[in-house]
Amino acid sequence: MAVGKCEFPFMSPVAGICLGTSSAGIKQTARDDVLLVAMHSDATCAAVFTQNAFCAAPVLVAREHLANNPHYLLINSGNANAGTGKQGLIDAQTSCAAVAAISKNQSTQVLPFSTGVIGERLPIDKLTSALPEAYKNLQEDNWGQASQAIMTTDTFAKGYSKVLDIMGHSVTITGISKGAGMIQPNMATMLGFIATDVKISQDLLQSCLSSAVEQSFNRITVDGDTSTNDACVLMASGQSSLPELLPHTEAMQIFQKAVKEASMQLAEAIVRDGEGATKLIKIHVQQATDEAEAVQVAKTIAHSPLVKTAFFASDPNWGRILAAVGRAGVEQLAVEKISIYLDDVCIVEQGGCAISYTESAGQAVMNQEEINVTVILGRGEAAQRVLTCDFSYDYVRINAEYRT
Amino acid sequence: MAVGKCEFPFMSPVAGICLGTSSAGIKQTARDDVLLVAMHSDATCAAVFTQNAFCAAPVLVAREHLANNPHYLLINSGNANAGTGKQGLIDAQTSCAAVAAISKNQSTQVLPFSTGVIGERLPIDKLTSALPEAYKNLQEDNWGQASQAIMTTDTFAKGYSKVLDIMGHSVTITGISKGAGMIQPNMATMLGFIATDVKISQDLLQSCLSSAVEQSFNRITVDGDTSTNDACVLMASGQSSLPELLPHTEAMQIFQKAVKEASMQLAEAIVRDGEGATKLIKIHVQQATDEAEAVQVAKTIAHSPLVKTAFFASDPNWGRILAAVGRAGVEQLAVEKISIYLDDVCIVEQGGCAISYTESAGQAVMNQEEINVTVILGRGEAAQRVLTCDFSYDYVRINAEYRT
Repeated sequence: MAVGKCEFPFMSPVAGICLGTSSAGIKQTARDDVLLVAMHSDATCAAVFTQNAFCAAPVLVAREHLANNPHYLLINSGNANAGTGKQGLIDAQTSCAAVAAISKNQSTQVLPFSTGVIGERLPIDKLTSALPEAYKNLQEDNWGQASQAIMTTDTFAKGYSKVLDIMGHSVTITGISKGAGMIQPNMATMLGFIATDVKISQDLLQSCLSSAVEQSFNRITVDGDTSTNDACVLMASGQSSLPELLPHTEAMQIFQKAVKEASMQLAEAIVRDGEGATKLIKIHVQQATDEAEAVQVAKTIAHSPLVKTAFFASDPNWGRILAAVGRAGVEQLAVEKISIYLDDVCIVEQGGCAISYTESAGQAVMNQEEINVTVILGRGEAAQRVLTCDFSYDYVRINAEYRT
Repeated sequence: MAVGKCEFPFMSPVAGICLGTSSAGIKQTARDDVLLVAMHSDATCAAVFTQNAFCAAPVLVAREHLANNPHYLLINSGNANAGTGKQGLIDAQTSCAAVAAISKNQSTQVLPFSTGVIGERLPIDKLTSALPEAYKNLQEDNWGQASQAIMTTDTFAKGYSKVLDIMGHSVTITGISKGAGMIQPNMATMLGFIATDVKISQDLLQSCLSSAVEQSFNRITVDGDTSTNDACVLMASGQSSLPELLPHTEAMQIFQKAVKEASMQLAEAIVRDGEGATKLIKIHVQQATDEAEAVQVAKTIAHSPLVKTAFFASDPNWGRILAAVGRAGVEQLAVEKISIYLDDVCIVEQGGCAISYTESAGQAVMNQEEINVTVILGRGEAAQRVLTCDFSYDYVRINAEYRT
């Protein structure tokens, strides 16, 4: 059911970042469900986590361990270790200790991540038993296996890789993501793991990641639900010949832009694989008072079940988009200043149906697999983009039948 | 597909309130789609309208006319007269003028209401041609026909009627509502028309209605979308023998409570008829800091597509409810204080799965047609209730196929 580009790209290895997978049989026995990532001793590591107050045990542990210059990531799919109380915390810590024992590191330098069913205890024995195999498999060119080991309801593996030139030095950015909704708290969770070989301080890497995530993973939505387990990690191995990146330099600007591009591509892949998705919808809100207002309007449209079912039906039912803008909570919205476009077709101008609009022109755009909705508010100069997908029978089927 | 109680009750006429219907063939030719309501010259009238910035032309006109001691309501189904710009305003005003001409009143004393497709011009000639017939049919006992004339995607007519005793005097409250989602901006809109025979000032009637609506129509949601045409009207004919109601009296308290009950019953009927609904879900949030916080948490649960599809599947997937509470935006939420119940079955205590919980106990509740979800936040003393329904294949079908 995925929309458009789903090919897994060629993944350039990142010097100093090794990946190993194995099968613990946590939910299924047929495929690898454990991923271990080992970073070079020079590496720095940044991460952002879910804002959900009910965050899962591994999120609590990873958030704490992030301050200790982490060297390992341990990811399992099939069980989220969420809603598991104190036992969940003990299990997450036990998994870190197991990695520490095998790698002769500190357990506080391991970040744990889990994705899968909420509310069931993590089968910790299965997980630790599978660790030696994953550790043995650690290699720099294992990104393909890694992308598959973290999948849950995903219908395709999601990767991004680019080798770029920064001031005459080669720099690699390679990453994977998973998620078939921005969130399905029961099952899917959004995870992203991106690696690069630049030298960079943890502080600068963290601000670089936070900025990139704000414009990418925080601008996608499948169903408006926020997982208990969301996380995105950016690792920098320091093995490139490029001198250490410093704030406010041209090299840092190029790098920031490249990380943002990687994040946006990996985020877009998640929407393309949205549960039951048949269309990719890019919602652009322009001439807003500020970015928050633009995001607010875009997300109100993106979350409207009526708008999403109209896209599924390829129905140019512009009244639903207009009504969503009208209820977005913008203070003193002057409806007569608003224009709305489907791709290049103006559907609303001066707050009413555009004079030039014809149903056949609207229909032609709605028949496409990828659709741009542009809302021009006429209030200011801020603009933001949010990606979403449509709402189909399969969305209901997938989420109604998941545990059966 | 409606859930539970759908019988149309016996409707006691309200002295001084007459209703007449006719067929204008606005969308269908087979049934009445015009309703005219005439109030006694002593009557007062209160109303509340949609908060959507893109409100429809009739809403703009009715809001303005409300100050002029209105005597007539004119309602049509089949066309919302929304997104129709200046022409829409002219058409709404023309419809009021037509009622004024036939009834020898001022057109500014007519409130117009429309519900149906957005963005198509109201067929004003059809509407005005059907007016003489509706005027001729004006009678006090026409509530049944009236309830059917305002239906759109509704699968059953919605009515409420009660004769009560206030300080030894008989008082009647009779009303109708329509809507098969809290809103479908394209089609359904929520409308409510309630009449009573008490004597009461417009100011006091308005505050009585606003308070009742806040606890009833503003506490239901099918899909989270707010219509461009929502409206609820409370008419008081002044024909009861009860002396004029005054603020802060026992009689006023009894009346306020009765109006709230009428509003809640009419609102609940809309959720029972929610598009594609198979279950009625009552979400109670208790021990919140204030009412706004309780509503915020309840609506986050009520709007979650993941929660709604789990109810459709009768799946006691409590992780989805817990995750929705966690993302509701409550500041400094102490998850360890939270308990959640499905009817009497405790599913979450101290922020984790309840020790006493069994899947079979949860399953037994989920199999019911009506389910209470109670979330105890442990933060304060405020409590609120929100009604919603589940999210089924039929919801997608109805909204994807509506215009085909």
